[in-house]
This record gives sequence, structure tokens and C-alpha cells, in this order.
Amino acid sequence: MEFEYTREEAAGLDAEDRVAAFRKRFVIDDPALIYLDGNSLGRLPVAVADVMSDAVREGWGKRLIESWSDGWIDLPGEMGAKIARIIGAREDEVIMTDSTSVNLFKLASAALGVARGRKVIVSDEFNFPSDLYVLQGIVRAAGKGFALKSARSTDGITIDIDDLLSLIDTDTALVCLTQVAFKSGFMYDIESITKAAHDAGAMVLWDLSHSAGVVPVKLNAAGADLAVGCTYKYLNGGPGSPAYLYVEKNLQEKLFSPIQGWFAAHEPFAFDGDFKPAGGISRFLAGTPPVLSMRAAGPGLDMIPEAGIEAIREKSIRLSTYLIGLARNILDLSQFSLGSPDDPVVRGSHVSLRHAEAFRICSAMKNPSEGEIKVIPDFREPDNIRLGLAPLYNSFEEVYEAVHRIGRIVETGEFMEHSDKRGEVT
Amino acid sequence: MEFEYTREEAAGLDAEDRVAAFRKRFVIDDPALIYLDGNSLGRLPVAVADVMSDAVREGWGKRLIESWSDGWIDLPGEMGAKIARIIGAREDEVIMTDSTSVNLFKLASAALGVARGRKVIVSDEFNFPSDLYVLQGIVRAAGKGFALKSARSTDGITIDIDDLLSLIDTDTALVCLTQVAFKSGFMYDIESITKAAHDAGAMVLWDLSHSAGVVPVKLNAAGADLAVGCTYKYLNGGPGSPAYLYVEKNLQEKLFSPIQGWFAAHEPFAFDGDFKPAGGISRFLAGTPPVLSMRAAGPGLDMIPEAGIEAIREKSIRLSTYLIGLARNILDLSQFSLGSPDDPVVRGSHVSLRHAEAFRICSAMKNPSEGEIKVIPDFREPDNIRLGLAPLYNSFEEVYEAVHRIGRIVETGEFMEHSDKRGEVT
Repeated sequence: MEFEYTREEAAGLDAEDRVAAFRKRFVIDDPALIYLDGNSLGRLPVAVADVMSDAVREGWGKRLIESWSDGWIDLPGEMGAKIARIIGAREDEVIMTDSTSVNLFKLASAALGVARGRKVIVSDEFNFPSDLYVLQGIVRAAGKGFALKSARSTDGITIDIDDLLSLIDTDTALVCLTQVAFKSGFMYDIESITKAAHDAGAMVLWDLSHSAGVVPVKLNAAGADLAVGCTYKYLNGGPGSPAYLYVEKNLQEKLFSPIQGWFAAHEPFAFDGDFKPAGGISRFLAGTPPVLSMRAAGPGLDMIPEAGIEAIREKSIRLSTYLIGLARNILDLSQFSLGSPDDPVVRGSHVSLRHAEAFRICSAMKNPSEGEIKVIPDFREPDNIRLGLAPLYNSFEEVYEAVHRIGRIVETGEFMEHSDKRGEVT
Repeated sequence: MEFEYTREEAAGLDAEDRVAAFRKRFVIDDPALIYLDGNSLGRLPVAVADVMSDAVREGWGKRLIESWSDGWIDLPGEMGAKIARIIGAREDEVIMTDSTSVNLFKLASAALGVARGRKVIVSDEFNFPSDLYVLQGIVRAAGKGFALKSARSTDGITIDIDDLLSLIDTDTALVCLTQVAFKSGFMYDIESITKAAHDAGAMVLWDLSHSAGVVPVKLNAAGADLAVGCTYKYLNGGPGSPAYLYVEKNLQEKLFSPIQGWFAAHEPFAFDGDFKPAGGISRFLAGTPPVLSMRAAGPGLDMIPEAGIEAIREKSIRLSTYLIGLARNILDLSQFSLGSPDDPVVRGSHVSLRHAEAFRICSAMKNPSEGEIKVIPDFREPDNIRLGLAPLYNSFEEVYEAVHRIGRIVETGEFMEHSDKRGEVT
């Protein structure tokens, strides 16, 4: 892709954008706000208002307990089926439930439970820290000899695949990786890593939090065993919307969740005293699902197949390639460097620009001086300005404006007016 | 309490009801519907509409990711503090998080982790089945010698306290009980059972799902170690609203959650690779909380202290005593029997009436014939018509009408028009 990096060109790119119409499907109050954090919390779909009104006013208020038989009881599976379409799975292989941390705990524990003496979980140093926390807790509780090993990066941007493969051997119970790294945006090929793990007799668990909805994911085609992910990023499910988990059909009855909750039981409403797990994917449910948050996630999930994941990915690559090219074109490369892979084949839908003053630059972007535009990125330690590109609502003009804004903040020294002190939530 | 059981008397009892004004604080579309299932799903508080509109439209839609620093990050603790007031705990001892099943798993696992060779969990046969399921899963995973023992009932209504106490000994790691039994409404005295457990060197974990908000609970005064509970029953938090957990202050840093999730970490936004648990109650959080469902729970939680738990309990006892008396006065006692304790001291806020055709009677109540009123109870196997009494919105007139309705269903044989087949959700 060759670009000229003029404002007119950006407008032209938007004019020929095949998914541009979806921007109107989101609530955008302030068109001057450039929101490049859809990979932390996706924007609010317009359709959520009616869904929530129905869930609260009709479901809870009017139908009361009878709403459970009206359909609430099926929500984990119904939302799971929507997600299954997005991640290349069968609809009876996915449920919406709990949080990513809890689901990772359930599935990694279950995998270790059938590992027949294998004691090692393999991950990587780019994995989301709380995924590593959960795995650390599991291996510690499992006892002596159990260990978590993490593949390293040599360039700070990509994981050294040879290093990863060298860790996978006959001691490996589970390979547990996040497909797209939260910081650099580095992206694994699910199929080849899954095959390597299977060749060594290990199972694989993918965290799709940063990839689902923006990258074509084909779990069934790749022969993937297990997966988890959140729904509040590119799936636009709302703040803290429940997460999901995937268990390949043939594995479902071989694995056992450590949390034998109510909804995991064979016949929860029989109120039997002894636990018997449900037959299929439901055995990985736990307690009563948060209905309102689940209902709110529906409109976001429906939009992905409607737009088409291939069209979304095509725009995502164009946006990120454009962003990187523009940054190289107008930013001072003695100060900025690219913190993401140059090759779109191994890059998700966010781009990190590195700068020694990244924290203060992000602060200036979020708290603009008089007359300036507001841009919301995400700072990630130690020096990443992380720019999330959500193809359903982000435009080339937004990227144009955002990168120019970063340039102005550095050129004018505006960032120096901001504190370097890290807050609680960044 | 002496009653005459006339309709006029019921109206009079409502007229002198100290908490009657709270009924207007709930959305009641159909005043002819008598809802006696607030112990499964509490009614919708009027104030929820504005709260949800703010959470969705302003929080998610407008402030987007910045809402996390605006206050979402504090929701588990903020809602926990509201709950703490209701269950007699300090505000830094309670958090709203996950589901009751997941919280029970976390706390019971944590307790077992510090049990120094004690291998038995003591519960009772009246405990909510999924609590028993969770505990069964924990002892199975813990390995050889670990066991779950359950105290029995001799009368089908109350737990034999002597039997329970005989099970608590130097092998007991944890006594795990639901304060008010979901079927019979039998209620434990938290203080005396906690003391007995402590005398034997065991910890205690209370499930308050069926008692919080309707019975004075004084965890601190009783010296209770641990507690969990749901918020969608008498706390009116909404369908599947997140649950809560309590860990006594001095125990917090001695216990470790098996699920080392993101929000349980010391500094989640530092994204360190190695897990270090948060200092206080936050270490028992797991993943990102479902914000919309949490926000929706606020209005219900606020109403309990506003009405006053003593006033609520007083009305609850009057309502249940009135119901039992009325049932004895007008129902055919050769067919009906009381499935709940007669003594209000050991009775929560629901009453079970037993009848061989309870399932079909409940079905007729929920699906009335032409010209009849609709009453929503809960059927519980094998023969319980469970009638939940929510003092904030249920009235004596409703109880009067409901019991008379049950009488008519049996006298006219109307129940025989209904199927005896159990559905998925009852």
C-alpha cells in the first residue's frame, strides 16, 4: 500500500471504506473526540438502549422470575453461539460466562487434570499479566514439579517462535497463549502453534481477548482445544461484559471444571444433593449469569458477522499500515520508534508507538490544551502509546488527525506540562 | 400474635405497616399480580431506570474508558460497603464480585489452604445443592482423606443441631452452611454455630443468600470468618446481579484465593509479570466486573438500611406468622402441612406449604383460570409451595389473597387441569 498522507487522501480512503456505514451504528456524542481505545472498551452500539430497556423494564420489571424460562436460562449458550460464529467454532462449543480470569482458571485447571503426569504449562512473556497470574496460581497449587515456562522476545515486539517451540516437549501439559499481545500487537498463527503443541502431545488454550472480532479466528479449522476471551474490546459488549470460553466438542466430556457450580450441573433445577456435570459445554458454567450485562453484549456481537470478519480485517490492516506509514512520514524518528510488528501478517489491530515520554504524551492527548482535539490512546509501560483501531467505527481521518496531534504534542513540548506520575487506572 | 383472618383485618395490618411506603419504590405494573418469589428474584426498584441510563448512556457511551477512573474501578468495594452495612461487617471486609458459586469456591479453597492437616468440611443436607456441589468438587480435588460431611434433619424442616455439632471436631477444617435453608426456611443462629466451630478450631463460612436483607445478620459481632451471598433475592439487585464475599479483616492477609485474577493483584495496572496479591479484601476479586449488572444493584442495596433491618424483620415475622395462621385457618389440614418451622426465631422470610399436588397447585397459581388472580410462588421438590415474603413490597392483603387462592385451587380441583411434568425452569 502506497499512501501520500494528505488530509484529502484520508477522506478519500474513508469514502471507499466498505464498512464505514457501521460507524452510525454506534453512539458517538462528540465527533471531535478520536477514540483509539476500542481495544480496551469498545464503543456503545446504538441498539443497546432498546435491549437494556427491554431487559430491565420488561424482563426484570414485568415478567420477573418467569423471564428465566422466557429465555434468560439460555443466554450463556445463545450469546456463546453468537461468539462461536466470530471465532470459527460450532455453536455448542462456546458459552458466555464469568470473566476471562475465571474461565482461564477453569480451563487450564481442567487441562492439567487430564495431563497424565505432564507438569509444565508453556506461555510467553507477552501474555497478558493476569493470564500469567492465573497460571502461576494453578501450578503453585498443583504442587511439586509443576511449572510455568514463558517464551521470550528478542526484539521486544515479537515472540521468538524458535524459543517457544523449544519449550514445548513431552513434559508440556498445556500451551497457553494470547493470540494478539496486548502491548506490541504481535499476533500468533493459531494453526501452526496448535499443530506444534499437538505434535508434542500437549493441549492448547488460546486467549482471544485482543483478536476476536478484528482478526479471522478459525478455532475448528486449526484443531484448537480450548479458548477464552473477553467481549468488551473489539466485540463491543460493554464494560466488564461477561467473557466466553470454548471447549472443542470431543473434549467436553473428558474435562472437568474445578468449580462445580449450579449452572454446571446436569439438572440444576432438580436440586439433587450430588453433583453430576451437564453433558456438553454447559458443564463449564458456574453460578447465575449477570443477565443485564449479558443482554447488553448482544448488539455488539451481532455486528461482527453482519460486517464480515474478512472486510473488518482488510480495513484493520489498511488502517494500521496507514498509521505506521503516516507516523514514519511526519514524526521525528530519532524520538519515536515502532513498538509493533511491521508485517501485518503478524500484527493485530492495534499499533504501539514508542517514545521515552509516552506517559506524558498520552496524558496530553487525553487532556488537550485549549483549542486542541482530544484523542484517547492507552499508555502501556514503559514507553508505549497504544493506538487501538476498531474498523467498525474508526476512520482514516481519525488516524490522520491523531498522529498529527501526537506530532504537535512533541514538537510544541506540550507534554511537558503533564505529570509523569502513574495513576491507579491508566 | 392473634389474628382474625378477615380481609378487613389484612387491610388494617397494611395500614399500620411501618415499611409500607417502600412498595412505591418498586415498579409494580400489574397490581393484581401477587408476587411471592422475591426470594428468587427481587422486584425492580424504580430508581434502577435512571442508574442504568447513566451507566449505559453517560458511562459507557460518553465517558468510555475514562469511566474506569471516574469510579468503575471502585465498584466492587463501593457495592461491597453497601452490603457490609446489611450483614454487620466493616466496609473493608466485603466486595461485590463474581457469582455465589465462584465466591464459595474461592473462600472454601482458601480456608482449606490454611487448615494444617484438617481435612473435613462440615455442611448440612439443607444446604443449597450447588453449594454442596462446589464443596464436593473442592474435596475431590484436594485428594485422599478429604471429605464433606453433612448434618441431617430428623423432621424434614429443621437441622438436628446435635447432629451438626457432633460432626464438628479436630478434623474439621471448615463449617460451611447456608443461614436460611432454601426449601424449609429453617434459620441458624450464626453466633452459636460460629462459636462451636471456633471452639473446635475450625473456620466458618456462611452463605447468606436467603437471609441478607430480611434478617439481621451480624457477622462481626458473631466473630464470623467468611461469608458469601447473592444479591438478586431480598437485596433486589437484579437478575444474576453479582454476588459478594466477606473475609474477616484479620484473616484477609492469611488467606489466598486460588484464582489469581487481574483485579486480585497488588497493582493491576503496573502489568507486572509476577503475581503479588492485593493487600486487603481486593485479593479475592478475580477478573473485570460486569459494570452494568453491578450498577443496577445499587438502588436495591440502598433501600435496606433506609428501611432499617429491624423494621424489615419485624414485618417479615408478622407476615410469615400471619400466613401460617391463615393457612391453618382456611386450608384443609388433612392435605396441607407446614414445611417451615413454626417458631419464628428459627424461620427466615419464606414459608413452605406442603401438599402432595404442590407442583400442579403452583402451576395453577402461575397460570390462573379466567377471572382468577395470578400468584407467583416457587415450587420446590417434592411437595413444597414456597412463598417468599419480601417485606419491602409484599402486603398482608397479598398474603390474604394468595392463601385463599391456594384454597380455591384445591377445593375446586382446578390444579387437576395442569400437567405434573417438571419443566426445565421451575
